[in-house]
Amino acid sequence: MAKVADKYLLVDPWKIIEAGFHPEKSKVSEALFSLGNEYQGVRGYFDEGYSGDSLVGCYLNGIYEERFLREPSAYKGISSRICFMVNTVNWLYTRIELDGETLDLAKYEISDFRQELDFRTGELHREFIWTTTSGKKLKLVFSRFLSMRVKELAFQRIVFKALNFSGPVRVTQGLDFSILHRSFQENFWECPQKSERAILGVSKSIRHKLFAGFEIQSGAPKEVENIREEKFVGCRFSLDLLQGNDATIDKLNVLATSRDPAQPEAEAWAAGKKLLAEHRSGSYTGFLQRNAEYWAHIWDRFDITIDGDPDTQQGIRFCIFQMQQTYRGIVDGANIGAKGLTGDDYNGNAFWDSETYCLPFFLFSNPQAAKSLIDFRYRTLPQALDRARQLDCEGACFPVATTDGTESCTLWQHASLQFQPTTAVAYAIWHYAKVIGDAEFLYSEGIELLIHICRFLASRGQWSPRRNQFGYYAVMGPDEFQMMVNNSCYTNLMAKRTFEYTLEVLAEMDEARPEKKADLIHNLACTSAELGRWKEMAEKMIIPRDPQTGIYEEHEGFFDLPHIDPDSIPVEDFPLYYNWSYDRIYRNDVIKQPDVLMFMFLYNQSFSLAEKQANYDYYEPRCIHESSLSPSVHSILAAELGRPQEAFEFFRFATRIDLDNYNRNTGEGIHTTSIAAAWMNIVYGFGGMRSDGESLSFHPTIPEHWKAYSFQVLYHGSVIRVDVRQKNAKIRIVEGKPVPVRLLGELREIGPEGLDIPV
Amino acid sequence: MAKVADKYLLVDPWKIIEAGFHPEKSKVSEALFSLGNEYQGVRGYFDEGYSGDSLVGCYLNGIYEERFLREPSAYKGISSRICFMVNTVNWLYTRIELDGETLDLAKYEISDFRQELDFRTGELHREFIWTTTSGKKLKLVFSRFLSMRVKELAFQRIVFKALNFSGPVRVTQGLDFSILHRSFQENFWECPQKSERAILGVSKSIRHKLFAGFEIQSGAPKEVENIREEKFVGCRFSLDLLQGNDATIDKLNVLATSRDPAQPEAEAWAAGKKLLAEHRSGSYTGFLQRNAEYWAHIWDRFDITIDGDPDTQQGIRFCIFQMQQTYRGIVDGANIGAKGLTGDDYNGNAFWDSETYCLPFFLFSNPQAAKSLIDFRYRTLPQALDRARQLDCEGACFPVATTDGTESCTLWQHASLQFQPTTAVAYAIWHYAKVIGDAEFLYSEGIELLIHICRFLASRGQWSPRRNQFGYYAVMGPDEFQMMVNNSCYTNLMAKRTFEYTLEVLAEMDEARPEKKADLIHNLACTSAELGRWKEMAEKMIIPRDPQTGIYEEHEGFFDLPHIDPDSIPVEDFPLYYNWSYDRIYRNDVIKQPDVLMFMFLYNQSFSLAEKQANYDYYEPRCIHESSLSPSVHSILAAELGRPQEAFEFFRFATRIDLDNYNRNTGEGIHTTSIAAAWMNIVYGFGGMRSDGESLSFHPTIPEHWKAYSFQVLYHGSVIRVDVRQKNAKIRIVEGKPVPVRLLGELREIGPEGLDIPV
Repeated sequence: MAKVADKYLLVDPWKIIEAGFHPEKSKVSEALFSLGNEYQGVRGYFDEGYSGDSLVGCYLNGIYEERFLREPSAYKGISSRICFMVNTVNWLYTRIELDGETLDLAKYEISDFRQELDFRTGELHREFIWTTTSGKKLKLVFSRFLSMRVKELAFQRIVFKALNFSGPVRVTQGLDFSILHRSFQENFWECPQKSERAILGVSKSIRHKLFAGFEIQSGAPKEVENIREEKFVGCRFSLDLLQGNDATIDKLNVLATSRDPAQPEAEAWAAGKKLLAEHRSGSYTGFLQRNAEYWAHIWDRFDITIDGDPDTQQGIRFCIFQMQQTYRGIVDGANIGAKGLTGDDYNGNAFWDSETYCLPFFLFSNPQAAKSLIDFRYRTLPQALDRARQLDCEGACFPVATTDGTESCTLWQHASLQFQPTTAVAYAIWHYAKVIGDAEFLYSEGIELLIHICRFLASRGQWSPRRNQFGYYAVMGPDEFQMMVNNSCYTNLMAKRTFEYTLEVLAEMDEARPEKKADLIHNLACTSAELGRWKEMAEKMIIPRDPQTGIYEEHEGFFDLPHIDPDSIPVEDFPLYYNWSYDRIYRNDVIKQPDVLMFMFLYNQSFSLAEKQANYDYYEPRCIHESSLSPSVHSILAAELGRPQEAFEFFRFATRIDLDNYNRNTGEGIHTTSIAAAWMNIVYGFGGMRSDGESLSFHPTIPEHWKAYSFQVLYHGSVIRVDVRQKNAKIRIVEGKPVPVRLLGELREIGPEGLDIPV
Repeated sequence: MAKVADKYLLVDPWKIIEAGFHPEKSKVSEALFSLGNEYQGVRGYFDEGYSGDSLVGCYLNGIYEERFLREPSAYKGISSRICFMVNTVNWLYTRIELDGETLDLAKYEISDFRQELDFRTGELHREFIWTTTSGKKLKLVFSRFLSMRVKELAFQRIVFKALNFSGPVRVTQGLDFSILHRSFQENFWECPQKSERAILGVSKSIRHKLFAGFEIQSGAPKEVENIREEKFVGCRFSLDLLQGNDATIDKLNVLATSRDPAQPEAEAWAAGKKLLAEHRSGSYTGFLQRNAEYWAHIWDRFDITIDGDPDTQQGIRFCIFQMQQTYRGIVDGANIGAKGLTGDDYNGNAFWDSETYCLPFFLFSNPQAAKSLIDFRYRTLPQALDRARQLDCEGACFPVATTDGTESCTLWQHASLQFQPTTAVAYAIWHYAKVIGDAEFLYSEGIELLIHICRFLASRGQWSPRRNQFGYYAVMGPDEFQMMVNNSCYTNLMAKRTFEYTLEVLAEMDEARPEKKADLIHNLACTSAELGRWKEMAEKMIIPRDPQTGIYEEHEGFFDLPHIDPDSIPVEDFPLYYNWSYDRIYRNDVIKQPDVLMFMFLYNQSFSLAEKQANYDYYEPRCIHESSLSPSVHSILAAELGRPQEAFEFFRFATRIDLDNYNRNTGEGIHTTSIAAAWMNIVYGFGGMRSDGESLSFHPTIPEHWKAYSFQVLYHGSVIRVDVRQKNAKIRIVEGKPVPVRLLGELREIGPEGLDIPV
């Protein structure tokens, strides 16, 4: 991995800090200093406007627009409709005029710039001194945060201090719906209703309603000029500054949406007004305090400490902080976009990463959020049933990329060939049931989803008559550098497991929920013949593997492919996606990301250490990690194979992928799922936790240069704390009842006093 | 093959005849009644305008426009520019008004409609009686032809006969550049220069210049109103008709273009005016007589007679007629579009069909045209070199679809994976050199092309390290239902043959042209190491084949694919391209067209009869013939395997594909290359001619229900005539010196007295 860090932030255990203005990093900073509370998110763009490189991104989770390809494919089953997360209303809109100049960090002299984002409050704080052409010096301090308690509330504070003059400064503040979408260069909002302090946005095509209202709570003079434009409401006023004194303006904002396109405009308007009225007097400091309490609880329960590596300490806390900002299960039917709420790259769509990379974080910290993530798939089951029909199949096929449950990927070579999103839903149900033990869910929504998924898998798979074996033809596995292959080992193995698990759950239900099962079988018209077919498909599934070496063949023919040593590829050829002729990517044994190693991670305990070693040693040197998801899985397996330094190298990349802008694209938004994977690298990687067996197990290791690290996981209502030092580890319960876990191969009951084990 | 004939034309040995108007077939008739002389072509649309379904197509060979995809792919090596044949000037433009009504066959009462196209003159003749609302009956006879002698000349004649009245009829005639393009609904012409009887069209983007001029030679009155519009020049006049008398208008048209976009407008205008002046007095009947002479010569030399099957007799003559209309080697740098000059489907682009399906017809009737066809590739070598670079390769890669030599196919799955166009150029050189023996060409342009093609093949192919064998990965062979496969048997075998042949020619040149070879090696910087690599690649080429059965595996893994019996596919699923989910097409052992059987046709004598039988019996039942090129190759092999009735069934389809509209898309233009293949079905199929051995050979067979058939081929300057009856065949020279041919395995000298052989 020829990835090189691009550092410019200060290292701090609880903050990210930009000291001195870095205009060449403006969009990277915007992404890193993003705020979110799952319901809404806002990039760290400048309140006062900025004519330099910037993406004014203010997003509401699940508020999207659609676009149809102008040259759709003539072939069947290929989506021509793209859903994309749309930037909404800029509630931070501020303009500041002094001596005829309008503040703009790209244009005027700036000094003493510093901005900080504090993980303990979620407050973003930015200050600098502006010197006008005439020599006046004005110090400005901008602060903002999103409430973690009342999801619709967003706060902004501006402090003005005239350093060498007294006199007026002119301020405009408001709510701006007129932002152009970055890539489409189009505005997607109509604003049918406005008042002095509120505006209703209706998205052009989907007809989402978004109420935005504000209240300047303090600091503004009585004399205020109201402004109302087509897509803007706000006010303009003069502040008379007195040299050396602070003048503070606090502005409260409400962004309210039901996320239901059918909601009438009048209802949306009334609901927003009501919310604004309720919280009109909610103070900046009061709500900030409640945020601090919220975050204190989070850190208390789920902090990861790393002693002896400040960079990584900062990195992992940034990851946990971002995960909490992105998703916490409070918005029904939400999912996790590729960039969370920090940018609209990948159109803000959600991928299979939600189930495979993000879900574990929530399984062990916030079961409600974990369930909500799976619930997204249950809610969008009708779309998945429809998608399967588009592909001439039965059952449910879950989309490669989605916002509303429909397929938003218009490339057939992905959307018609990749089924890891579908098997990932089955895996997620299995993992959720195993860790959380939620029988109620499993025996209702869970099994219903599983049956529809099996139906898809049964109809998409085919029998090879010469071998009398079942498999998948013309597919693409998770490794996107092997397109349209036959019998992808990953695809086949995941399908086999899905059939087996579904049949297991149905068998369990004979005992556990016989009536429920009878209803289900009747409602879904399942026959024993159908179940018999699934059993046979699972039994006769082709799993390509070399029995001599124990190496699984990524797909049939992979072993015979022409070889390229990734180290021999000139660095300027990366990313291969854009520098190699498209077909050239697909005809070597170079892989983009783990595929065989991926299922060895997902079903870790089904494979022997020797198998993992043989497969790691075969596939790792062939992998170029042209996916941000790739290094973390390698890190976990390297740790298991007793290669802590190799594990650390992969982990460092995952943990600071955005802080150090390793992929040089953080400006478009942070890599949410890589961030989730960084958490897995501590817990599953160094911590050696495994959650795919009969019981939870731990097998901690530690990189050489760390003194110690610790993490906590919520498991069956108890919080397990793991403290690891160079020689030994302690595992104990810090909250809740004792729980059994497997340590060094033995099942042990862990209580508050804990157990010490050697590392 | 569930193809069903849709007959509506009368059967006649020398004509196609539509008796009675068939408005529901209007576009099919337009295509079938098309005229062409290679340089220009015109569909059989109605001179007088028609508000029903119609495609006003008037094309000039090589006059095209370009269009860029609005949503081009972000990946490398994928063309986003489409070249397409553009409809030019409607030189037949006529409007006829009587009693305030404008003649339109879609609107008014019509009787006694009949149109005929005579293969002996190339004249299209159409007549009918128009009854106006007021009851006036006007008989109209429209005739037209394109001169085969002076390629720019196009003639129109209209005869008016008032049947039950005397009085004026108002006529408008002119040249109309304002036609919209069928699929883009856009007009692509500017008309910067006009005079009373001439207009210059300049195509919008490519800047082709097309001069169009006309002269009403007889029949028009003195009083004429000239019309000049933005894209139209013409005139309007009244004809005073006398009941029972004929009034005839003859209009001569000149369509002149240099096909060079760089030609200055003034020069194009002057050249066109000069041509018009030269031919102003050339009469309709005079030029028609010269056409009759031209066609008499063609039929005398290359007619195919079939005794006992009038349908097929008509069909095969239609095929020969259309081939002559489409291509005859008079326009430098022209190629053969998918629909010839009878429609703009497939954007009028040329495909590998030119070399594999059309070339043989010209090799054995018009060597100059054959050379011209290969010359198109030599002229576009710079574009092919550029295309290879786009694909990260060396040498020359010839386009899948092209008008100007650049790749006009924007689907990467074809343009980046299919190399049969490139190996077809090598095959064409080999075939041309073998049949024509043109050493001058072979040792200059021929070998230069071959070397560049080998360089492409060497750089696109790869070594499989595990096997130490060479092959092609991520390719699509001719069978377009197996996409992105490894080691396509066809691709590998054709590449192997190309390497071998190129090395052979270079070896020959040591003796034949040592100085020329030295220059060539020097100019192209060929090293012996490079030639050595080609030798090794050819030797170590992977050719998948089951040694037990002798069946070649279409590509690695084909034998293990899921099986579908084409007969089990519901008829409403066809064409699968549009009725099956795109991916579903590619994951069965169903094939679209011959692939293994294709190379068994191309290198026929390299395979034993037993091999051909085994492969035919394996692949034929798996083929659904969703390409119009497919049945003909099956017909030839079936004939060879001694299955004349099966051969006839496939042949019938190829021969009357358009007359009986088997694919229901003749309206978009005729299937030029299927038509060429029909000729091959007689000569190679029933005639059993083989041209891939050391000498020409024949092995005639005959379908049961034919009394006799005959064909003639030009070979080494002599015309060989083959007459086949049920029991015996006679082969003799009807023009030129005796030539040696192989008959029943023996090399025999054939003279004018000929030889009789049993059938």
